[in-house]
Amino acid sequence: MAKSPEVAHPVKAFGWAASNPSGVLSPFNFSRRATGDKDVRFKVLYCGICHSDLHMVKNQWGVTAYPVVPGHEIVGVVTEVGSKVQKFKVGNKVGVGCLVGSCRNCESCGNNLENYCPRQILTYGFPYIDGTITYGGYSDHMVADEHFVVHWPDNLPLDSGAPLLCAGITTYSPLRYYGLDKPGMHIGVVGLGGLGHVAVKFAKAFGVKVTVISTSPNKQDEAVKNLGADSFLVSHDPNQMKAAMGTLDGIIDTVSAVHPILPLLNLLKSHGKIIMVGVPEKPLELPVFPLIMGRKVVAGSCIGGLKETQEMLDFAAKHNIKADVEIISMDYVNTAMERLEKADVRYRFVLDVANTLKSV
Amino acid sequence: MAKSPEVAHPVKAFGWAASNPSGVLSPFNFSRRATGDKDVRFKVLYCGICHSDLHMVKNQWGVTAYPVVPGHEIVGVVTEVGSKVQKFKVGNKVGVGCLVGSCRNCESCGNNLENYCPRQILTYGFPYIDGTITYGGYSDHMVADEHFVVHWPDNLPLDSGAPLLCAGITTYSPLRYYGLDKPGMHIGVVGLGGLGHVAVKFAKAFGVKVTVISTSPNKQDEAVKNLGADSFLVSHDPNQMKAAMGTLDGIIDTVSAVHPILPLLNLLKSHGKIIMVGVPEKPLELPVFPLIMGRKVVAGSCIGGLKETQEMLDFAAKHNIKADVEIISMDYVNTAMERLEKADVRYRFVLDVANTLKSV
Repeated sequence: MAKSPEVAHPVKAFGWAASNPSGVLSPFNFSRRATGDKDVRFKVLYCGICHSDLHMVKNQWGVTAYPVVPGHEIVGVVTEVGSKVQKFKVGNKVGVGCLVGSCRNCESCGNNLENYCPRQILTYGFPYIDGTITYGGYSDHMVADEHFVVHWPDNLPLDSGAPLLCAGITTYSPLRYYGLDKPGMHIGVVGLGGLGHVAVKFAKAFGVKVTVISTSPNKQDEAVKNLGADSFLVSHDPNQMKAAMGTLDGIIDTVSAVHPILPLLNLLKSHGKIIMVGVPEKPLELPVFPLIMGRKVVAGSCIGGLKETQEMLDFAAKHNIKADVEIISMDYVNTAMERLEKADVRYRFVLDVANTLKSV
Repeated sequence: MAKSPEVAHPVKAFGWAASNPSGVLSPFNFSRRATGDKDVRFKVLYCGICHSDLHMVKNQWGVTAYPVVPGHEIVGVVTEVGSKVQKFKVGNKVGVGCLVGSCRNCESCGNNLENYCPRQILTYGFPYIDGTITYGGYSDHMVADEHFVVHWPDNLPLDSGAPLLCAGITTYSPLRYYGLDKPGMHIGVVGLGGLGHVAVKFAKAFGVKVTVISTSPNKQDEAVKNLGADSFLVSHDPNQMKAAMGTLDGIIDTVSAVHPILPLLNLLKSHGKIIMVGVPEKPLELPVFPLIMGRKVVAGSCIGGLKETQEMLDFAAKHNIKADVEIISMDYVNTAMERLEKADVRYRFVLDVANTLKSV
């Protein structure tokens, strides 16, 4: 039986948790483990609100163990390091994303792909190796094995950089792995939310031409003028979609609602690739004929490994890439979740944890 | 209006054609063009019967223009060459596969991928550049631009090698392109028919371990003992499928009936690929979660370009790869089509055209 961090550990901690599928978060006292030999303890400064936090607090994937302290886009400052920690010192700015553990032994781990390790440990709501349940970044501090902690680049903003730890790596990694990062290529980004808007920025930094594809015509100005996309397609306008057929080398599809793939396949050139990073609950319809006739690919990608996450942050710092965020206080979190459910955010809420989380 | 070869051309030709959706083939007099500067004329020796021939004679894809002379696995001997032909001489053994033309100008053509040229011309039932309709290899002779003719390797059998021109290249090309040709890899081949049995042979020749996946338990002996597959899975046996989860680097899926993809995705390791080469008429159900969690790929592939077709034939000759065939006479073709519809062939019918096609 997993022990809960309220009782298992010696170090008091404080955060906000949801305790039932209403998803309403409220102040929550718990505990975290003592700093182990390889552990880094850090004060949380900022934490992004990912759409999966919303799914989790409401148990929409059916896997939530309450109470749940969400948050996996966490930026902080190191307060203590274990005796065998090599990469970090007290005072370092650091980040933790979706993972706090993996087997460190399998082929995926050996290839710096901890994100595909079958024994990966998620940052919150998951059994840790000591039998306790992990609690996330909507909290005063974190403790994590240094392998799962990344250095925060000096010139990357702590607040608007935080979402890169999930939204950033989720889009950066497939652009790299699937070879959609070559200057002169032309890609599509489907869905202009937390993931999509960062995908546009990375692709542009790679020298790739970007078309945003959205159901919302009113996002055109935002996409082209503010985010630097080269063009915009309204996905339910058959004339626009037809005119753009066969023009894209690849597509990053961030939409997590069920949607048709055929119109997207038609936008691809031969040998083009659609990479799904959103997770529709039900299967999509896959027409095979266009897949075959154009040697096209439909594929998936899930966050990224730790080495690549560090590489992505360094790239973002160098190219001045950050998320467009709305900084909020901890006691606004429930309102933020309601607005997130209505997609009423451009494009990511980030909790100012250090300045607004007050112990009770 | 397209002119039909019965009347358009100066050279008499003779073959078997279907004239309506019954699909019944009967003797047919028509004509072929004079030998152009870059054309190769050849006497047809053997022609394989591809499953798509059956679809076409019965208009099952709704695109058939009657009369149709099928056949795109054609082996012959050159009888005449145009004044500017460089690659061939009278007496050469040659092959023609699914294509007799393409634009020669687009990016695909420039990359030796005529098979993905949007203006490709199929070997039968397709408008040629002179406005006539192409007629295939169930006929006494063919004439084709030398670019679309391949050299037949000396030690490759003319009869059992013929199916390589479609079934062979259709499976060889994706194994190469998608990197499933590395010694030590382990792939699955779904469906043990004309395509599947050749896929097994190519994969084995690459040094790849092969598991055949089939609905028919009675194909196990055939797959393992006769074709050299390393193992066999009955796709509707949940225990067998479960035991094999996460073991395959890739899958060549040759099945053209609608079938579930999820059990196949589950057989893949992380980063594994399913390549569809069969064309189910209706869309398949694509579950996105397993695609994302394992960075898996579902992709298509369609025959191959001319350069790769030559490479494939040379590889087959070197490694003694040929199809398992049943050689039949021209007047058996309608019975063969009936048996093909019931999958009653191991694994390809090949027409002995030169010895059995009698003019009427």
